[in-house]
Amino acid sequence: MYYHIMETIVLVEVRMKILVAGLGLIGASIAKSLKKNTSHYILGWNRTQSVTLKALEDGAIDETGTLDELIPQADITIINFYTDAIIPFVMENRDKFKKGSIVTDSCGIKTMICRTLEKEKFDFYYIGAHPMAGREVSGYDASLPTLFDNASFICTPTNAPKSKIDTVLELAREMGFKRTVVTTPEHHDEMIAFTSQIAHVLACSYVLSPLAPQHAGFSAGSYRDVSRVARINGEMWSELFIANKEPLINEIDDLVNNLEKFRAAIQDEDRDILIDLMAQANRIKEEIG
Amino acid sequence: MYYHIMETIVLVEVRMKILVAGLGLIGASIAKSLKKNTSHYILGWNRTQSVTLKALEDGAIDETGTLDELIPQADITIINFYTDAIIPFVMENRDKFKKGSIVTDSCGIKTMICRTLEKEKFDFYYIGAHPMAGREVSGYDASLPTLFDNASFICTPTNAPKSKIDTVLELAREMGFKRTVVTTPEHHDEMIAFTSQIAHVLACSYVLSPLAPQHAGFSAGSYRDVSRVARINGEMWSELFIANKEPLINEIDDLVNNLEKFRAAIQDEDRDILIDLMAQANRIKEEIG
Repeated sequence: MYYHIMETIVLVEVRMKILVAGLGLIGASIAKSLKKNTSHYILGWNRTQSVTLKALEDGAIDETGTLDELIPQADITIINFYTDAIIPFVMENRDKFKKGSIVTDSCGIKTMICRTLEKEKFDFYYIGAHPMAGREVSGYDASLPTLFDNASFICTPTNAPKSKIDTVLELAREMGFKRTVVTTPEHHDEMIAFTSQIAHVLACSYVLSPLAPQHAGFSAGSYRDVSRVARINGEMWSELFIANKEPLINEIDDLVNNLEKFRAAIQDEDRDILIDLMAQANRIKEEIG
Repeated sequence: MYYHIMETIVLVEVRMKILVAGLGLIGASIAKSLKKNTSHYILGWNRTQSVTLKALEDGAIDETGTLDELIPQADITIINFYTDAIIPFVMENRDKFKKGSIVTDSCGIKTMICRTLEKEKFDFYYIGAHPMAGREVSGYDASLPTLFDNASFICTPTNAPKSKIDTVLELAREMGFKRTVVTTPEHHDEMIAFTSQIAHVLACSYVLSPLAPQHAGFSAGSYRDVSRVARINGEMWSELFIANKEPLINEIDDLVNNLEKFRAAIQDEDRDILIDLMAQANRIKEEIG
């Protein structure tokens, strides 16, 4: 008589308690997308309490309370504050985070934060992250449960174990992110200086031309698209720019250098150089998008 | 006995013969929008004859022929060539245009063309124009009957009588343009340097960063929007840039100057200056769009 042993793997979704600290555009969109797409239990906290109560009323979070009450319960804490407030928040609450839990953040720069926190001995795992999405409007009322659909989630772990990193990436996929990218904080910051920060700097620099106020009637799609991100929250972005000083200055210098190439070719009426510069740019857009 | 004399004004749409010379993106879109929205009779001509035949087959034009056959019939001739070909076309055919007819063009720069042609004694009226619309793709196959819906039509007459200018503006409205603007060639070129040309120069300069090829996974809406118009026809734009040298160089200098202000403030970690620059840019976008 033979016995056949069947192995069955049952996938059980683990219902975690997730604390979303900071309920502005990004934090509240994280809470809303978690509520929409997962069965995790969402704890929410915001400095301005009227916002927390609104989030509770809207069903964007399941529970609120004081940080002393909330932090020790959380399996994952997601910090959504301005750049300069993230390290102080982690340090002040370092003894409250649940042992073995994950602490992450959504800040748009990573080197300064990740390389500072990796030097500490914590009972929890800090894993830096950057959900790549935004809007020209900010604050709780601008948040959307669909903000991250089709977006990239970038994760910049330094000293966390693979299982903890996988938990963060899996959560991102559950939230609706289309793509997850794992890289170093330094590579993240260099790429973000190019894809996001310099785009904002140049949109602002563009609309600061003395001719901008007269543009109506003289503009089509190019003005609209190039200037869009000049609608900007200067309080937040000024912090991000300074925190990512070196890579961003490199990008400004590259951009100015390319503009000067166009300027010189136009000055010299050198069509060949202009055609060559535009052929290179066109090729990049055709091949890479 | 009293006689009452009634005056009746009957508005009769005058069916004109309109010659569209050049059936690329703009020319063919003009022909298609005229066919779609008016009952004018459309003559079409293109250097590459296969394109003319395609347009005839598609019903984008009513008739074709040689320039010697077509030009003398036209009440309005619309020239849709590259910048450098417009003045030669007008001069070579100056004795063929119908007496009292209108000759116009769709070229994106106006001063050089309008100020050259106004010095000539013609039997017809030359009125420069610029339909403010475009796409990242070019050629007949990219043309659309709806390309000008919601767009601006700019007209830069120099020495034409009001009745002829009104005919051109009325035709633009019939074609679907939402707004018509009448200005000087010089003001047009200065504004276009800002709203269109510098936007293309900076989009190209942006994607020429060495980091562009790696952007996938690190970019959201800002990269996409700011870089869109780097998909560009360098043959055409190099001509336009050189033909509008002075205003465009002024705009490049203004832009570089603003970028340098950001650079200096980031270098000095001066948040107040950064916040102030972004507040100005944000105000322009909020108030003017």
